[in-house]
Amino acid sequence: MKHGANIYKYAKKLGCKPEEIIDFSSNINLYDSLLYPKVDIKRYGDATYKELKNAVAKRYGIKKSNIALFNGASSAIFALLEQLEYDTLTLYAPLYGEYEKASKTTNIHKINRFENLYEKPKKNSLVIFVNPSTPDGKYYDLKKLFKLWKEQNATVVLDESFLEFEALQSYRDEIQNYKKLYIVQSFSKFYSCAGIRVGAVFSSKENIKGLKIPMWNLSSFDVAFLEKRLCDDDFIKKSKKHHKKRKKELKEILKRDFKVFESDANFFLVKADRTLFRKLLKHKILTRPCGSFDFLDDGYIRFAVKDKKSHMRLKKVLKDIE
Amino acid sequence: MKHGANIYKYAKKLGCKPEEIIDFSSNINLYDSLLYPKVDIKRYGDATYKELKNAVAKRYGIKKSNIALFNGASSAIFALLEQLEYDTLTLYAPLYGEYEKASKTTNIHKINRFENLYEKPKKNSLVIFVNPSTPDGKYYDLKKLFKLWKEQNATVVLDESFLEFEALQSYRDEIQNYKKLYIVQSFSKFYSCAGIRVGAVFSSKENIKGLKIPMWNLSSFDVAFLEKRLCDDDFIKKSKKHHKKRKKELKEILKRDFKVFESDANFFLVKADRTLFRKLLKHKILTRPCGSFDFLDDGYIRFAVKDKKSHMRLKKVLKDIE
Repeated sequence: MKHGANIYKYAKKLGCKPEEIIDFSSNINLYDSLLYPKVDIKRYGDATYKELKNAVAKRYGIKKSNIALFNGASSAIFALLEQLEYDTLTLYAPLYGEYEKASKTTNIHKINRFENLYEKPKKNSLVIFVNPSTPDGKYYDLKKLFKLWKEQNATVVLDESFLEFEALQSYRDEIQNYKKLYIVQSFSKFYSCAGIRVGAVFSSKENIKGLKIPMWNLSSFDVAFLEKRLCDDDFIKKSKKHHKKRKKELKEILKRDFKVFESDANFFLVKADRTLFRKLLKHKILTRPCGSFDFLDDGYIRFAVKDKKSHMRLKKVLKDIE
Repeated sequence: MKHGANIYKYAKKLGCKPEEIIDFSSNINLYDSLLYPKVDIKRYGDATYKELKNAVAKRYGIKKSNIALFNGASSAIFALLEQLEYDTLTLYAPLYGEYEKASKTTNIHKINRFENLYEKPKKNSLVIFVNPSTPDGKYYDLKKLFKLWKEQNATVVLDESFLEFEALQSYRDEIQNYKKLYIVQSFSKFYSCAGIRVGAVFSSKENIKGLKIPMWNLSSFDVAFLEKRLCDDDFIKKSKKHHKKRKKELKEILKRDFKVFESDANFFLVKADRTLFRKLLKHKILTRPCGSFDFLDDGYIRFAVKDKKSHMRLKKVLKDIE
């Protein structure tokens, strides 16, 4: 499994409906207050996405001219890795698989961040760091790494897609200090809208201007939805509260049976054994085995924070299969 | 003006609401029967877009394996021009400006299709042809051109985005015969959904497999909408009927004052003078001056087919400003 969230495939396998599966593989904020915008889809939208950029700028405390919008963070990653100049791609692994998939070079240097965090990246390379990281959720203080990256004259892509669940420091302000920094921001996770395909890149005004982006790359419906969601302070407040409570609950359940990695995001990585994925799946519980991640195998399983009912179901099933 | 449909900019200029402007610059099918799909936007959609590909395959009479989906035809164009191999880009001009914008080479050879249609493209070049063409709407029989392109071993990108309004022959079947052919298909125009960002590329199975496409590049809402719309035979039938009637009506109005180019699409190019755009704009009628197109200037104006009310308004204003 290259990515989580493939409930369609497993529903087919199990002969059940996708809705019947509890999907612990998808790490999307569970708190939700659905609102549906009214949009005239006949028309072209405003091609500059001014209003949405205003909402992003306000939410993240940066200027509109420092924002580029793509149809999802994956598309942002593809555009950066296609358009930036580099001979070597340095990946702090394990990390989200799209980065390697999008590389335009096979000259890839993987740094094992568990064991060798301060290994030097190659001079002038393109460095990818995800913070908090996946699939474990660890948040890193990047001061020493930024020093190292600058010394190596690296172009840095920093993915902060899982930052907002907890009050962690962003490195967005660094785009003013380091001209070779690009920050990737997914909205799917915290804003609970994986079906809405909008992701952002934050960088210097010059860098943003230099990116080639097709006209009208965003769905009008998605734009209208996200404009509202980003301004919904109540959603944000309640999401964080929900997250805190449920995360604690899930951790308690998991740590009774497994070694649980420290996490600053909305998911947990556990060291189990290779049979756990299939055992849980039989009970219509989908998790994310991490064999496709570097330095891990399918005995490592990622669980996303879900609602109380799903957690209780997991608790019961874990007890039953002991 | 690089592209039509910028009612937001002109509404600001005129100090009126965008809705007050009659937009003859946007060539979208006017017939509409709005339906809003119910979509769970929290979830990731099926990453293979199987159901939508089935709908596209059925509508266009091709196999699913011959279809790649992008977030709009512009994104499809960008991906092709970024990923295909070519030294020279051969553009049959005038044509949609995104092609030149997306080129990865400055080595661009423009063939004036009005005057020199059978000029030889460079050997091994990437050829772009839009049929029916913009901004004039002429449909070309491509038999002789295909022969020429094959002789020159050209990779061919054929844009058939305006084909469906009238019963014109598609060259889709040619993807079986010519392995270097890619067909671009926008759904915005005929299916009346410019805010829905989905566009397709049709090509051989091998070519489609070779395209790099980010995961989840389409909005779940857009996917659900288009799945329904492509299967809506009633919409298609009524659209064609509406198109035929209104196109005739608009032509009658325009030809009283201007030289009107023959068109097989849902718009007309007229030879007017450079003042017409501003004169009409004062009356909140937005048109598309064609100065940004090669071999044309802002005295050439494109009018999209609209509804009866808009046509009557145009008729009156044209009379008043005579």
